[in-house]
Amino acid sequence: MTTQLEQVYEPLNTKTAIELSKNLQLFDLHDELTAEEIGDGNLNLVFRILHIESGNSIIIKQALPYAKVVGDSWPLTLDRARIESESLQRTYQLVPKLTPKVYYNDPKLAVTIMDDLSHLIILRKGLIAGHQYPKLAKDIGTFLAHTLFFNSDYGMNQQEKKIQSSRFINPELCKITEDLVFTDPFFDHDTNNIEAELKSFVEHVIWADQPLKLEVAKLKKLFLTKAETLVHGDLHTGSIFVSQEETFVIDPEFAYYGPIGFDIGAFLANIILNYLSQDAHLSDQPQKKAEFRQYLLDVLTTTWTVFEQEFTSLWISYPQDAFMKVDGFLEQTLADIWKDTVGFAGCKVIRRMIGLAGVEDVESIKDSPARIAVKKQALTLGKHLILNRHELTTIDKLVKVVSSNA
Amino acid sequence: MTTQLEQVYEPLNTKTAIELSKNLQLFDLHDELTAEEIGDGNLNLVFRILHIESGNSIIIKQALPYAKVVGDSWPLTLDRARIESESLQRTYQLVPKLTPKVYYNDPKLAVTIMDDLSHLIILRKGLIAGHQYPKLAKDIGTFLAHTLFFNSDYGMNQQEKKIQSSRFINPELCKITEDLVFTDPFFDHDTNNIEAELKSFVEHVIWADQPLKLEVAKLKKLFLTKAETLVHGDLHTGSIFVSQEETFVIDPEFAYYGPIGFDIGAFLANIILNYLSQDAHLSDQPQKKAEFRQYLLDVLTTTWTVFEQEFTSLWISYPQDAFMKVDGFLEQTLADIWKDTVGFAGCKVIRRMIGLAGVEDVESIKDSPARIAVKKQALTLGKHLILNRHELTTIDKLVKVVSSNA
Repeated sequence: MTTQLEQVYEPLNTKTAIELSKNLQLFDLHDELTAEEIGDGNLNLVFRILHIESGNSIIIKQALPYAKVVGDSWPLTLDRARIESESLQRTYQLVPKLTPKVYYNDPKLAVTIMDDLSHLIILRKGLIAGHQYPKLAKDIGTFLAHTLFFNSDYGMNQQEKKIQSSRFINPELCKITEDLVFTDPFFDHDTNNIEAELKSFVEHVIWADQPLKLEVAKLKKLFLTKAETLVHGDLHTGSIFVSQEETFVIDPEFAYYGPIGFDIGAFLANIILNYLSQDAHLSDQPQKKAEFRQYLLDVLTTTWTVFEQEFTSLWISYPQDAFMKVDGFLEQTLADIWKDTVGFAGCKVIRRMIGLAGVEDVESIKDSPARIAVKKQALTLGKHLILNRHELTTIDKLVKVVSSNA
Repeated sequence: MTTQLEQVYEPLNTKTAIELSKNLQLFDLHDELTAEEIGDGNLNLVFRILHIESGNSIIIKQALPYAKVVGDSWPLTLDRARIESESLQRTYQLVPKLTPKVYYNDPKLAVTIMDDLSHLIILRKGLIAGHQYPKLAKDIGTFLAHTLFFNSDYGMNQQEKKIQSSRFINPELCKITEDLVFTDPFFDHDTNNIEAELKSFVEHVIWADQPLKLEVAKLKKLFLTKAETLVHGDLHTGSIFVSQEETFVIDPEFAYYGPIGFDIGAFLANIILNYLSQDAHLSDQPQKKAEFRQYLLDVLTTTWTVFEQEFTSLWISYPQDAFMKVDGFLEQTLADIWKDTVGFAGCKVIRRMIGLAGVEDVESIKDSPARIAVKKQALTLGKHLILNRHELTTIDKLVKVVSSNA
């Protein structure tokens, strides 16, 4: 049975998912198990297998050979499951407390079996509900520093890094980012998803702005060519599970060798979008709004500060390159990472307002004028970040821009 | 016989080299062939197989599983033969008139069979002898534009580029460049090869200069991470065959995905080194010296100018990216390429004066004070290029620095 499953791709169902977990001896043969499919069915099947008696559970995630978005469906490589598995396993070596453990993976079946984290909440949902997570920023800052440092030429044997990079060539998923983050939103492209009331604003403020397009061209070029480290590739608040005590980063199927600033920018952008959305969500609770927004600004500050401190400490402790002891190289490297971070954050903010995939933080604002107002603020801010990333040289300056913009 | 040869690596000899070429039907079974080993035996075996009657000939190049340099010997991957073959084949698609045609390659045997170019001379030898090659600069400018454009995200399908890059992961040969070009010459490292009379100059002018080291750190970082295009990786004047009518680029075993400016900088650096060396070679023929040096300056100018024109024309004709039509992006891209070119040229100049591998242009200067003087000029110039690459914004400025320095 296992052998057969390993040979031919076939979508699992609750029955075969249970069989697989027993064949792999993740449970005893006579354990009474339940299986529930809890995925959204657009890209992956996600089965939660539960041993009722002990309460032990695992997740079986299986990639589907297509993507369904807004009714459309297009083929999508199953290799992303291998990439996700291998990225999780590499990440677990580096930050085990922030990464689900992988128990099994099968590239042919496109299956990864890992820790069940369903006692936690997806960060995006938690933030929309106005919950604060005291450990989040420190955990994400640590996650970013350790993963981005130890997979780079700074923290990894430089020849092993090249070999590792060959396992994370990820053309199809990179193309999604290249198109949907860096290209389509900046042109009048049919993948865009723009509310009618916003169209003319977008035409004037985004599409007609040639200097903006030139800066986005440079940022897209960095995404295409700057092979600094193994990035998560899609580190938004929907890829993070949280509670008051725990933080886990999931879903690295977009992993590839890219710029260090890309993951940091993605995370900051999604915190910023939640910040902007609270103008509407908490409009009738001014004190709670002020308090929660201050928490979000603190998340921005702490995430970068912890990243910077940890990255610096790793740089000093585990240098892989003779030049890492040269005066000014660390400072220059951090300044470059920050500049990229701000630019990528700007692109991510813009694409979520007018590109194919919106964010629930903003889309869930029911009041239409309020929602459009938030989107305009976000577009203006995203553009400002892209155009002024050379001047916004510190996290404090970024925080000031975010808080004064909204 | 062929099958056996294909299964197990074994160094060829003149007899088995002839057998291989007949088994592959590159010659008739009864042709009378001669074989001559014409390589230097340090890295590769090179057999010239000649059919006496017709005068037809081919080259069989076989990688050896080790490198011999200055008496030492260390293991070196045979995979470089596959990389060289595949790079030659890809390059032949793009610039067939400037690339030897590959007739056969066998990764297990580490063998490439290709056009015999022994009617031509290695450019370095020709320049040392004071010969001018009227087509050289235009041919190399064209070679650089077409290969560097069509293997990049500007000129190649961006997903195919990623897949192609996975075939050119080249850790061992990249390490040679990382160590011998970008690292060891800038520190007191035992691979360096420094004449006694030069030691104190190097200590003061190179090793003690912290701002220089910081700039080299940035350039090394570009070599490690800037995966723009498939570069030749070792495009010095010893990798080019010439005559008055023809130009061919050979030996791309260092090929990998790196910065566009790397190949251009390597070529310019080696022309500059010949320029500096002629101060000694032609010291007693002032008119010939002035004339030949002017020719070399023209080679610098024409190579870059042709590259820039061709690259611009390809950019306009074959854009792969929506942003390539955005105002200013081409100019910005060319400015970046040029800046990298100048910096890499500076590193290449320096490493040839004090690193493991010198250049015959300079080493063949018998008069010791004259040779040391040239080396000091070269080190000063190399450093100037690295430190001032942001200001030396045009080829004219570079040419002015080269001609005023010497």
